[in-house]
Amino acid sequence: MSTPPEMKVETSIGVTAPRGFRAGAAAVGVKKLSEKPDVGLLACDVEAQAAAVFTQNRVVAAPVLVSREHLAARRPVRGVVANSGCANACTGDQGMADAREMARAAGALLGCPPEGVLVASTGVIGRRLPMSKVRAGIERCAAALAAGPDADLAFARSIMTTDTRPKQAGVRLTLRGRPVTVAGATKGVGMIAPNMATTLAFLTTDAPVRSAILKKVIRRAADATYNCLTVDGHTSTNDTLIIMASGLAMDGAGKAGDRPIAAGTREAAIFEAAVTAVCDSLARQIAADAEGGTKVIEVRVTGGANGAQARRAASAIANSPLVKTAFFGEDPNWGRIVSAAGYAGITSGPETMRLAMGGIVIFDRGSPVDADAAGLRAVMKAHDIDVHLDLGAGDGKARYLTCDFSYDYVKINAEYTT
Amino acid sequence: MSTPPEMKVETSIGVTAPRGFRAGAAAVGVKKLSEKPDVGLLACDVEAQAAAVFTQNRVVAAPVLVSREHLAARRPVRGVVANSGCANACTGDQGMADAREMARAAGALLGCPPEGVLVASTGVIGRRLPMSKVRAGIERCAAALAAGPDADLAFARSIMTTDTRPKQAGVRLTLRGRPVTVAGATKGVGMIAPNMATTLAFLTTDAPVRSAILKKVIRRAADATYNCLTVDGHTSTNDTLIIMASGLAMDGAGKAGDRPIAAGTREAAIFEAAVTAVCDSLARQIAADAEGGTKVIEVRVTGGANGAQARRAASAIANSPLVKTAFFGEDPNWGRIVSAAGYAGITSGPETMRLAMGGIVIFDRGSPVDADAAGLRAVMKAHDIDVHLDLGAGDGKARYLTCDFSYDYVKINAEYTT
Repeated sequence: MSTPPEMKVETSIGVTAPRGFRAGAAAVGVKKLSEKPDVGLLACDVEAQAAAVFTQNRVVAAPVLVSREHLAARRPVRGVVANSGCANACTGDQGMADAREMARAAGALLGCPPEGVLVASTGVIGRRLPMSKVRAGIERCAAALAAGPDADLAFARSIMTTDTRPKQAGVRLTLRGRPVTVAGATKGVGMIAPNMATTLAFLTTDAPVRSAILKKVIRRAADATYNCLTVDGHTSTNDTLIIMASGLAMDGAGKAGDRPIAAGTREAAIFEAAVTAVCDSLARQIAADAEGGTKVIEVRVTGGANGAQARRAASAIANSPLVKTAFFGEDPNWGRIVSAAGYAGITSGPETMRLAMGGIVIFDRGSPVDADAAGLRAVMKAHDIDVHLDLGAGDGKARYLTCDFSYDYVKINAEYTT
Repeated sequence: MSTPPEMKVETSIGVTAPRGFRAGAAAVGVKKLSEKPDVGLLACDVEAQAAAVFTQNRVVAAPVLVSREHLAARRPVRGVVANSGCANACTGDQGMADAREMARAAGALLGCPPEGVLVASTGVIGRRLPMSKVRAGIERCAAALAAGPDADLAFARSIMTTDTRPKQAGVRLTLRGRPVTVAGATKGVGMIAPNMATTLAFLTTDAPVRSAILKKVIRRAADATYNCLTVDGHTSTNDTLIIMASGLAMDGAGKAGDRPIAAGTREAAIFEAAVTAVCDSLARQIAADAEGGTKVIEVRVTGGANGAQARRAASAIANSPLVKTAFFGEDPNWGRIVSAAGYAGITSGPETMRLAMGGIVIFDRGSPVDADAAGLRAVMKAHDIDVHLDLGAGDGKARYLTCDFSYDYVKINAEYTT
């Protein structure tokens, strides 16, 4: 998940920074507190290449099914319409009709067929969308479409649920001597354990990239960032990561006419590094704003018998409520970390393990180490904590981002719908 | 997990109720608060048949390794020595030597070789046992060995960690016209997600049963009870379930001379039902005393494409922090239940699902049901809540016991070692 050194990620760069994109948001009362924006529209002035990854949950929300259908047509898209406050999941045939209606209404305003619009929803599961409000919201979004920092933040806010702050990130780079931007906005602080996909995230770029390459790039980027992120181990019904490419960086004339980036080239590698860096920043912003979280913990596992074992161990550690509450208590209760790895389906045992927290080795080849207690206390008091478990069994490695588990996680989630 | 109708489980029946067993306990300061008992000895006056199941965690505590070795010798045993306050896990070669020393010291006092004693420890991982205290404790336990309700409870208390009350259960039945008893004591309210084994549990019986049959009986009993129990999804390093059979019910003369129960007989089925009923009661007592838990939730999944899918769905629901916090908030946030099943690796989707809570159907074949809101509120306010998800895809079924997730879970686990 490390950012390549040449990629400077800036959180001041939002989704309309790449050329050709505009965004709008509206507050129409889908959320209980109606002054908060809850409908958003992200539009491309030209036909954009697009790709997406979606939740692997078998209980899939209607907007995910509709977006999958629209992408399956393998045609360019003109935008994404999104709402927060209602997930439109577990809503049956009516939910499908509502998601299609969102695409139709947005498409009519953008001048494209329904298939030219992707749909995303987030919020409470099992409730119908208030469609008259949503239709009104889409119209207001379309009327307000604009580019610039205000539009970026308005859109990022429109997809928030229990998030305490909007989340966006972008990278500026140079390709073929021209300035290119990759940017994104995301939401989500609970029901976070993306599986081959993510919570809601929308990336934009003005690089000239065909959808076939976009698809590969975001799969790999999601796998290295969002898919190694957990707040509570609960994979959502609505996870959606969409990327749209306008191609406008190359000609400056409003048409995506330039030669697209070819697979396997240095350009493609640079572009993928930029997308990964943006996803990494967005995923870290989720971990930092996690429901009730007070710390960001990066779990690195090395020395796995293979990569899958390292990843299972990192996931088990990052998901254990016992590990997470210990971090909240700033308690170096490392036995919980080692034992979580032990039940993750690894083939090696404690006799080859080595555990360090903040660089201080605390367990080595089966036995505790008499570690620097004051140093360890300082590590546990920090906001960002590095945990490194070497399994000592091979070359497999993995990273996971997680947060601690606090009273507020319980409070937020005990009170979320009632 | 239902109790066969003829088996009346009583929590007044403890581990020394079966003939031939005596127990002792001592407080020697392995736990921080030294007035709490922390060493226990459960002894059989004759050579007992024994069997056990242990944790499947790859990080295995020394007492588990030593008990496995002793059982591998396939000889009768004379007792179990246990301590709380220190798990003797992740303690390397020294931990193995300490566990062996516990068996040796107890064996010397019971008049048997070290291999005649099984060992169990529970408590903080990664600390060495204070062996001079433990040795003194074993001597005091041996001097105090007795049968009766006081001894039962003293032993059950000696294995407690964050438990708020001792946990025991027993069944009296009649075999061949003679009274037979099966009883057990258990502990554990956190780090609970037994996998083919359990937390600490010690069962005794005076039925004449050979170890080969005991082994099969407790594997099946554990699989139907303890292995379907979760508090926090974290499988311990020390899980141990031991059963010892004195055989003394049949002769009353202090010798286990009577014909043993044969496999496949009606006697064997009755005995297994009794063991399962005792394990079921002990597992329910753990769920009811779970760290910070305020409710016991029984998750029943039916209609799975197969049994494994039903079990994975039940486990995912029972382990989801989002589901558990919703129960703490008495919030019928059923979307979290359905979506947890969805990420559990099932092949069917929401269109065949039906979810009921306390018998009230709330989601049916992909769509929400306009359920009786007052009735549902009453269901959520109860201490014991029944959740029934029918996947509508086949005959697979499973049950899981779990608890809710409260502020106190966070408090207890943020403060446990420091």
